[in-house]
Amino acid sequence: MFTHPRPVRFQDVDAARIVFFARFLDYCHDAVEALFSPLPGGYPSLTMARDVGVPTVRLEVEYTAPLRYGDVAVIEVEALRVGRSSFTLRHTIRRGDGGEVCATVTHTMVTARLSALGAVEMPDDVRAILASHLTRDGAA
Amino acid sequence: MFTHPRPVRFQDVDAARIVFFARFLDYCHDAVEALFSPLPGGYPSLTMARDVGVPTVRLEVEYTAPLRYGDVAVIEVEALRVGRSSFTLRHTIRRGDGGEVCATVTHTMVTARLSALGAVEMPDDVRAILASHLTRDGAA
Amino acid sequence: MFTHPRPVRFQDVDAARIVFFARFLDYCHDAVEALFSPLPGGYPSLTMARDVGVPTVRLEVEYTAPLRYGDVAVIEVEALRVGRSSFTLRHTIRRGDGGEVCATVTHTMVTARLSALGAVEMPDDVRAILASHLTRDGAA
Amino acid sequence: MFTHPRPVRFQDVDAARIVFFARFLDYCHDAVEALFSPLPGGYPSLTMARDVGVPTVRLEVEYTAPLRYGDVAVIEVEALRVGRSSFTLRHTIRRGDGGEVCATVTHTMVTARLSALGAVEMPDDVRAILASHLTRDGAA
Repeated sequence: MFTHPRPVRFQDVDAARIVFFARFLDYCHDAVEALFSPLPGGYPSLTMARDVGVPTVRLEVEYTAPLRYGDVAVIEVEALRVGRSSFTLRHTIRRGDGGEVCATVTHTMVTARLSALGAVEMPDDVRAILASHLTRDGAA
Repeated sequence: MFTHPRPVRFQDVDAARIVFFARFLDYCHDAVEALFSPLPGGYPSLTMARDVGVPTVRLEVEYTAPLRYGDVAVIEVEALRVGRSSFTLRHTIRRGDGGEVCATVTHTMVTARLSALGAVEMPDDVRAILASHLTRDGAA
Repeated sequence: MFTHPRPVRFQDVDAARIVFFARFLDYCHDAVEALFSPLPGGYPSLTMARDVGVPTVRLEVEYTAPLRYGDVAVIEVEALRVGRSSFTLRHTIRRGDGGEVCATVTHTMVTARLSALGAVEMPDDVRAILASHLTRDGAA
Repeated sequence: MFTHPRPVRFQDVDAARIVFFARFLDYCHDAVEALFSPLPGGYPSLTMARDVGVPTVRLEVEYTAPLRYGDVAVIEVEALRVGRSSFTLRHTIRRGDGGEVCATVTHTMVTARLSALGAVEMPDDVRAILASHLTRDGAA
């Protein structure tokens, strides 16, 4: 499991004073960028230099508790499935380390040429990172 | 069916030059605000004066085509289900009026006191708006 | 003078429940996109097809009153100066049509090749739009 | 001088593939939150528990070079002036540590009750942090 802490920023909340529901997905993408940071040049190099991105094709989100300004969102990332050119992550977003679960996100992405958005086979170094975070609990 | 046009803005795209996947949910919320605009004072009055909001509890999103700068996202909103204090909308996001489907969002919300985030029975005028956009195709 | 109404959205406010100060600049850019909408294909075509953009080189902003959810920001745009490859706009952001001034923005942009970010001479149709909104009050 | 690194995120760029001009101000606010993190409970506690915020009243921004995805924005913060209930910061935003200056921001804020937005005398602990970052170069 990969863990990414992400303090709620002053501008992340909405008129209800809770983190805007769409912002949870920004947090997940931040975690994905961090997950791929061990690649040479990180996610920026993968996308900009190697022209390989991971556009999202499917999301399922359960919201179970609000996040507020002052909270640190902790995003736990596990790979539920790693295929030839697609993979599914599960993000568990907690309030602080080990805290209450605020959202659970099932997030399916494909490896694709960013310039043309066509699927490409998953590069080996991308696959290695995902494989190292494969869930062991069979929860998929 | 309720329809809301939303031009893609210059800052809505990401480094892949397509609308960032989380921004689609911002578009859906814009459509929800527009859907409730017939209420007296609109959605702002519902949330700020009457202290009733519609926090999201569940999302399912299928992304089927990218949106780019210059596109107008057209969000078609239908109610799949209207319950006592929760409801489910389906947003079909098209590229332009009647154009290609870029995303399909199943969006479940609850009516809640915004100050306390506890569920409340759906106000009659909220229910009337949702009922007027109930889908007839049984696709739920 | 060009006028652009922009309702405050639910996610535009911050933890202080007022529109986040940086969001005022997003509003100004929305107004600039609208200002250039009479061009063939609008601002998207200018930037994407003709590869001419108007990156910002200088800003001065005075914040004089807060905007809140439920307000409609009305952005009044005037050109203070139109040069060979740069121009300065003044955005007066009011709470509602003719309402209190919430911010005054002096905004200098250059016409530039977006692919290379080098300055280019201002296209005639861009100049014509700016000239039609030149201020007459000598307030520059 | 206080220094805050802020990697450019995938969704921070715009259709011109450079960081959207308004996003630079989000970066400055992130730096301000970090600047005040030595306060007990940090900036969240100052704003939410003690009801003291620092709304912006004036900005001047010079943009001198673009930021792109893959860059790390490094924001250098100095206090140019600390008054009774207002202060002025200068943010120098560089591409990487010690790198090219991409923007210079002169940022004036007031200490205010967030619930009422009225000015209040600057708390001593806020003043102490600002004083510790007062510029010595007389550039104000």
